[in-house]
Amino acid sequence: MDAVNIGSMLARFSEPWAPKKIAEINDYDVKIVKVLGDFTWHSHADTDELFLVIDGRLTIQMRDGDVALGPGELFVVPRGTEHCPRADAEAAVLLLEPRGVVSTGDAGGDLTAEVETLR
Amino acid sequence: MDAVNIGSMLARFSEPWAPKKIAEINDYDVKIVKVLGDFTWHSHADTDELFLVIDGRLTIQMRDGDVALGPGELFVVPRGTEHCPRADAEAAVLLLEPRGVVSTGDAGGDLTAEVETLR
Repeated sequence: MDAVNIGSMLARFSEPWAPKKIAEINDYDVKIVKVLGDFTWHSHADTDELFLVIDGRLTIQMRDGDVALGPGELFVVPRGTEHCPRADAEAAVLLLEPRGVVSTGDAGGDLTAEVETLR
Repeated sequence: MDAVNIGSMLARFSEPWAPKKIAEINDYDVKIVKVLGDFTWHSHADTDELFLVIDGRLTIQMRDGDVALGPGELFVVPRGTEHCPRADAEAAVLLLEPRGVVSTGDAGGDLTAEVETLR
């Protein structure tokens, strides 16, 4: 049983909006993702979604206003809340959500990513 | 809706082994805890438990061996696995587990802490 070093895992890929699973807790997945530019507006009807910024800055755009996050800051998007993550420069984010949640939620489209597992 | 700054939350308390809830995702709690010295050997029969080190170093002692964690490193203790966290110098750790999990698991005792919520 080994520790998971988030920085080492981030060094293993570069493409934005391609979440990688790095750990599991019960029926939840811990994922990391690099973000750059605008994602797509979407929501998850059945689950909250946690964002924890590891490096850089992330803005979570919502219809009622934006939340700006820097390193060591987290935010939980409530279930059913439309949101669109944005990063003006590359940033790295840890995500937590139940296993099987689709990254683009109800929106689908080209940004929908298969989640690879890094070991 | 505001971001949660982990560092700011850590600055608001000092006592070790007193987890504070800083966020919720569905029926899970995100907690932070300061650790110093040895905790108590215990296990959680019904849930995994995630440890992510924010500052300092944490050793998760288990019967089959130890896992050493530094900042930006995480480990998930599988359900039912006896473990005893230890920190030789003060460290700060983010915890994730289902709401209502008791910190000392099956062991109970004086180190069992009520979880305060920081807002």
